[in-house]
Amino acid sequence: MRGFMREHIYPNEQRFMRECEEMRVKPGSEWTQPSIVVELMQVSKRLGLWNLWLPNDTAAIAGYKGAGLTNVQYAKLCEIMGTANHMEFAAQCCNCASPDTGNMETLARFANAEQKDKWLRPLLSGEIKSCFAMTEPNPIHGSSDATNISIDIKRDGSRYIINGKKWWITGAGAKECKIMILMGKTDASASPFTQQSMILVPMESPGITIVRPMMTIGDVEAPKGHMEIHFENVVVPIENILAGEGRGFEIAQGRLGPGRLHHACRLLGTAERALSTMCKRADSRIMFGKPLKDYDTIMQDIAKSRTDIDQARMLTQYAAHLLDTVGSKHARKELSMMKAVIPKMTQTICDRAMQMHGAMGLSQDTFLYTGFVWSRWLRFADGPDEVHWRTVARLEMKEQHSNELFRIPYYSHTSSDIHRKNPPSKL
Amino acid sequence: MRGFMREHIYPNEQRFMRECEEMRVKPGSEWTQPSIVVELMQVSKRLGLWNLWLPNDTAAIAGYKGAGLTNVQYAKLCEIMGTANHMEFAAQCCNCASPDTGNMETLARFANAEQKDKWLRPLLSGEIKSCFAMTEPNPIHGSSDATNISIDIKRDGSRYIINGKKWWITGAGAKECKIMILMGKTDASASPFTQQSMILVPMESPGITIVRPMMTIGDVEAPKGHMEIHFENVVVPIENILAGEGRGFEIAQGRLGPGRLHHACRLLGTAERALSTMCKRADSRIMFGKPLKDYDTIMQDIAKSRTDIDQARMLTQYAAHLLDTVGSKHARKELSMMKAVIPKMTQTICDRAMQMHGAMGLSQDTFLYTGFVWSRWLRFADGPDEVHWRTVARLEMKEQHSNELFRIPYYSHTSSDIHRKNPPSKL
Amino acid sequence: MRGFMREHIYPNEQRFMRECEEMRVKPGSEWTQPSIVVELMQVSKRLGLWNLWLPNDTAAIAGYKGAGLTNVQYAKLCEIMGTANHMEFAAQCCNCASPDTGNMETLARFANAEQKDKWLRPLLSGEIKSCFAMTEPNPIHGSSDATNISIDIKRDGSRYIINGKKWWITGAGAKECKIMILMGKTDASASPFTQQSMILVPMESPGITIVRPMMTIGDVEAPKGHMEIHFENVVVPIENILAGEGRGFEIAQGRLGPGRLHHACRLLGTAERALSTMCKRADSRIMFGKPLKDYDTIMQDIAKSRTDIDQARMLTQYAAHLLDTVGSKHARKELSMMKAVIPKMTQTICDRAMQMHGAMGLSQDTFLYTGFVWSRWLRFADGPDEVHWRTVARLEMKEQHSNELFRIPYYSHTSSDIHRKNPPSKL
Amino acid sequence: MRGFMREHIYPNEQRFMRECEEMRVKPGSEWTQPSIVVELMQVSKRLGLWNLWLPNDTAAIAGYKGAGLTNVQYAKLCEIMGTANHMEFAAQCCNCASPDTGNMETLARFANAEQKDKWLRPLLSGEIKSCFAMTEPNPIHGSSDATNISIDIKRDGSRYIINGKKWWITGAGAKECKIMILMGKTDASASPFTQQSMILVPMESPGITIVRPMMTIGDVEAPKGHMEIHFENVVVPIENILAGEGRGFEIAQGRLGPGRLHHACRLLGTAERALSTMCKRADSRIMFGKPLKDYDTIMQDIAKSRTDIDQARMLTQYAAHLLDTVGSKHARKELSMMKAVIPKMTQTICDRAMQMHGAMGLSQDTFLYTGFVWSRWLRFADGPDEVHWRTVARLEMKEQHSNELFRIPYYSHTSSDIHRKNPPSKL
Repeated sequence: MRGFMREHIYPNEQRFMRECEEMRVKPGSEWTQPSIVVELMQVSKRLGLWNLWLPNDTAAIAGYKGAGLTNVQYAKLCEIMGTANHMEFAAQCCNCASPDTGNMETLARFANAEQKDKWLRPLLSGEIKSCFAMTEPNPIHGSSDATNISIDIKRDGSRYIINGKKWWITGAGAKECKIMILMGKTDASASPFTQQSMILVPMESPGITIVRPMMTIGDVEAPKGHMEIHFENVVVPIENILAGEGRGFEIAQGRLGPGRLHHACRLLGTAERALSTMCKRADSRIMFGKPLKDYDTIMQDIAKSRTDIDQARMLTQYAAHLLDTVGSKHARKELSMMKAVIPKMTQTICDRAMQMHGAMGLSQDTFLYTGFVWSRWLRFADGPDEVHWRTVARLEMKEQHSNELFRIPYYSHTSSDIHRKNPPSKL
Repeated sequence: MRGFMREHIYPNEQRFMRECEEMRVKPGSEWTQPSIVVELMQVSKRLGLWNLWLPNDTAAIAGYKGAGLTNVQYAKLCEIMGTANHMEFAAQCCNCASPDTGNMETLARFANAEQKDKWLRPLLSGEIKSCFAMTEPNPIHGSSDATNISIDIKRDGSRYIINGKKWWITGAGAKECKIMILMGKTDASASPFTQQSMILVPMESPGITIVRPMMTIGDVEAPKGHMEIHFENVVVPIENILAGEGRGFEIAQGRLGPGRLHHACRLLGTAERALSTMCKRADSRIMFGKPLKDYDTIMQDIAKSRTDIDQARMLTQYAAHLLDTVGSKHARKELSMMKAVIPKMTQTICDRAMQMHGAMGLSQDTFLYTGFVWSRWLRFADGPDEVHWRTVARLEMKEQHSNELFRIPYYSHTSSDIHRKNPPSKL
Repeated sequence: MRGFMREHIYPNEQRFMRECEEMRVKPGSEWTQPSIVVELMQVSKRLGLWNLWLPNDTAAIAGYKGAGLTNVQYAKLCEIMGTANHMEFAAQCCNCASPDTGNMETLARFANAEQKDKWLRPLLSGEIKSCFAMTEPNPIHGSSDATNISIDIKRDGSRYIINGKKWWITGAGAKECKIMILMGKTDASASPFTQQSMILVPMESPGITIVRPMMTIGDVEAPKGHMEIHFENVVVPIENILAGEGRGFEIAQGRLGPGRLHHACRLLGTAERALSTMCKRADSRIMFGKPLKDYDTIMQDIAKSRTDIDQARMLTQYAAHLLDTVGSKHARKELSMMKAVIPKMTQTICDRAMQMHGAMGLSQDTFLYTGFVWSRWLRFADGPDEVHWRTVARLEMKEQHSNELFRIPYYSHTSSDIHRKNPPSKL
Repeated sequence: MRGFMREHIYPNEQRFMRECEEMRVKPGSEWTQPSIVVELMQVSKRLGLWNLWLPNDTAAIAGYKGAGLTNVQYAKLCEIMGTANHMEFAAQCCNCASPDTGNMETLARFANAEQKDKWLRPLLSGEIKSCFAMTEPNPIHGSSDATNISIDIKRDGSRYIINGKKWWITGAGAKECKIMILMGKTDASASPFTQQSMILVPMESPGITIVRPMMTIGDVEAPKGHMEIHFENVVVPIENILAGEGRGFEIAQGRLGPGRLHHACRLLGTAERALSTMCKRADSRIMFGKPLKDYDTIMQDIAKSRTDIDQARMLTQYAAHLLDTVGSKHARKELSMMKAVIPKMTQTICDRAMQMHGAMGLSQDTFLYTGFVWSRWLRFADGPDEVHWRTVARLEMKEQHSNELFRIPYYSHTSSDIHRKNPPSKL
């Protein structure tokens, strides 16, 4: 993977950026893959770097040769892929980018044979792309609380009819995107966690309107896009339901652990790249007659960034290890810690690196602005920081009840009679 | 006041510290005033720097010559007094220290003629000292929410009988402390804000036990002390009630505004002193071959401290101005901002200054540790930071409803049809 | 001004954003003014809100009716204009936007009658626009240290010949931009601060190539743009020199004070807008069953933002007051404090507001991303934070030498002989 | 070890604090061990928890049965011991406290047989205690740069004569302290790193004056004390030199790695204890009608503290692992990261816990103030934060030169000719 980055990714970063830029100013072309990505997809396939995310057991189910990597192993590769100037440039070339990996894993685990044949096979080969429709534009209730999801999936004989709105549908912009996994409500009268189902919705279905791309800090994130999509009487056959009615919440839970891990590891790569860029600048730039590296504010920024990254990496590796050994449910606390720590940290490190580069640090001449925007964005995606801190705190509170330190009483209020002896005369 | 500091306070700081220290290791002596304070009380009286806190109107009521300073003017003097090595050293010499100032103001405003004659007169002259008993040791409910105060003041014919516990009674340790203003519950069946009364309790009353001094970071804060006091059938005549039954909450509200202002301003003095100490160190100390002032981390600490202090001072002056012009109720937001900002800021500045001084910064060779402990302590006293942030936020939310920026709607979700034109072919 | 905002700016914000967006995807159109700006320029002229920045004395010189506002007064208007969704939308409509205001003031103060007639007159009337070329693309030396500026302005008989490169030339993209004030080196052998001159360079001069727009976090900032421009044997007549050879540094110094003030005040407006947006969200959004305003993290963000803004505004008003009364040189410390505080604060407040809005907070549905990007950008523009902290620290160190607190000695090391009495027996 | 804590330490904490307190107010008694420590020393010996710090190889040399624990293993025990209410209470009971452990290790590694027999043997058995004299009171030069150490050790025939001053000699106060390892200058003409020697100085030597205990935030830290000691013609036989003249710097280097690790791990214990205390408070305290655990600021403090501790522990375990496998020199970066991270983190966590407890959080009713003061103090001891950040940054800069990310060039300045096509008409 390091060789692939060195020979194929880093030297092509500027071409990648230029192609993206060119397509953006040429209307209609922005939603296609840059040609360099298409080229490098062939290279990575040839080198055996294709679909590395694919777990052993999933591969077996899908009848496809997976890499058979543990989460600990794949996490390291994610970090390496994340060192590209755009966090997902290398990942796209290796069919390891979101939301396709999450979607493919979901299909591998929950789809039936026909569904797999129709959608998983071409996704694994890279012929098509997919999107995942969860978040809804609701001015009052947030989708971080998944019980709020309310798009209507109504059974009507042998078909479902879908009505409602979704937004922030990442990947729905791409011309190659052919299939959407949609989470919606099939039974409003069921218990809160079984009202939801997941269903496969072909992108060409009549009644689907891509209203607009949502922008992240001014960028439409072409060619994937984060789309707002409206559904008006969209008809889907009942065999498109995934795993069965009412299992939406359960499927959603399962996909979040690995997805968060992959994003976190790619951001570690971003942070490492930003730190290297910082050191390069400190080494070469002269300000008021001395190199930046002779300023101790600069050096403290470097030292703190190194320390933050190293600590975050250990936390991430530990979460990956728990995923491998005790599973996603028992790794919840560590995954949430990781999710709350890494995007914020990466944003901070990119911000420091920008500041060290002067105005150039915001410009197209370094990769920093993409790292900055992506890390900022990932403080929401897959759950905002606040929701993850909440999870950590709740689990911690629970665990503390069996901690013996927790049970040591406060000292008794009237015990220290030493002082009773020498206060004021009136006693 | 500057002259007094220059000629009498700064040159005697070391004597003050030494006397405090000597008394602390000589049992029984720790609860008396250091002799330097007693001496300088005479000097400040002679120089007309005595009772400067006394407002014009209060003075008129009390038949005592007050300085007639506005809050804006007195705030400046508080800051100057606060530059002493111990935040209240100069204030004690000028009869301007807490809790006596707050108590005297309360008496001047709410006591009747007999009460004033008996207690206010000797307090104004410095013959006796006083304390204020509010906080209660309750493991469950905090006294920051004053409705939780529950000490029992039971009417029994022509007298009240008091039972219960108080702690953190600042000033109760001093031998000269003769009178306590106690807040307690006279009528548990009244509405939440009229259950409380304030009553004058002579310190010699039978049934009062000073259980122990509470320590702040290991210090008993002699000679004032923050005492825990138990009340067992303490009898007080009914004429000792202040202003009337049920007015405790109202009196408590009134005294907090100026008290917080005075503490805040003294802490500004502490912060200024810490900044000067920092600059002195930066100017004289050499580390790895160059003076500290050639390290930009050091210089940024200095610059940020200067900026924080200047901003906090303006906020404080503005709050004082509001107190002078629209009164304590309408200055609530600014007073809370000031209260939440200044102790934390001063703690941070002292912490920076300590760090610049190495281990010496924690020792008795600089004043920094007293500034550090006092500012830490004042993040609770008169209400913890969190309660003040809450007040600011609530008032802000309320005010925003009449702000026109608040009423500008979010942009409409489906308006931007530019992008509808060039997304994927399927549309 | 408030009326103008209410009636003309806020209701047209969405149209402004849409026009900018439409022009961006229509090649060739992006460097023209949005039609709404052109329309509102007429409105603001009619309402007498045109050229409000123009100081009295400058107006007299220019023979043009200025508003005659002090810096304190104009600062308040800047803040109001800054509450538009794009920091300079209202300012552009009032001919109060950078870099034109700085350029016009420079011309009013330093240009001769012919220069004024030719360039200042049409700038004042809004017929043309201008740019200011200072920063240079130098991999080693930064332009924050102005002595590093090295573009070559060589005298050749009755003309100058200019060669070199500049970048981050804000405003050079606009079709209406007709004149550039360029800072370059006329005499490399002079003393460091007299090597530089300013010269007027018409944008149509042969030899000027606009190489590319520099992007700030992915945005080309059309229609103004921050351009990179190359100069190849650009010929300018000698009468285009401003004020005389060698006075470049002096002119540059003068323009920075007010310019920084204007930007800072507009950012205060941005911060106020972000705070209002935050409160609106807290008021309307429900998360896990309770409104955001019932979360104390949210409320603390609101309280701290309010407090930071209020303190920063006071600092700014004070700096404006100093500019008015003692001039830019003696306001240096306060201007630098303000410059270091406000962009960082505004970035932080926008970041908090974004986080409160979830992914929508990064999108085109709120104004927050423009506030975030602009405040980030202004941590460099007109000098990076670090340079301003350095200025504050140096001035502070200097002033401390005449502060009496600075001269109080550390306590003497061997004075406290109390402890000598009771340490170990071996003594 | 957990059993020992549960049965012997936690239940005796209050007695420990009370004894310390009683001795402090009874002059002359403060420099003796509290009786509970003396008792528990016997218990820990019996339980085989004595001298656990003693490495295998050292034990072999000393002919004493060591625990033979790796640094990774001992680090875990240090953390457990650190959960006592006073960071070194349990450690003292197990003969595992500083500075004795460092001194014993130094003696085991560098002392000759006679020296070991005379001093190491009684130290290992707990009969005597020791101190380490390094820091000097120099108003200009700091001892963090060890080349500044200047106390004079002059050879005079078969003896050395020592003159000069030391301060912050931790442990020198204890009555049981019989031996000092002193670092001083034997040859001012040698190269900077060979001027220093270490020498064994019996505490009873004539010419030694314990001038005073240095205080840390008002505490003399009895019974160990941080003493200022003056040396006037103190005579020591030449056989007391350690390892040979000129090896002082080398010995000093060696002892710092493990010492820092032990302190860091004990502070992890302090932080864990503070977190438990925080959770207990959040669970039991009611504020404005709801338990603290229903406030999300409280919960975020808990979550962030848990996350910070877990990350810091992993960093510490990794540093310990490097010490075990590649040695102190190659673990320098990780040891410095750990040293810079942990005391600051622990101070912050104690500060949060204090704030959650209101004024009680500063008092003698919780252990928090000792944790707060010790962690503050350890931001200097064994090198201030700043020196460690400097080490990390320098090592990082060096390593980056062989990082391939470091070598990726900035994008070329003139490459993006897309934009050249559509800027202003004049091109």
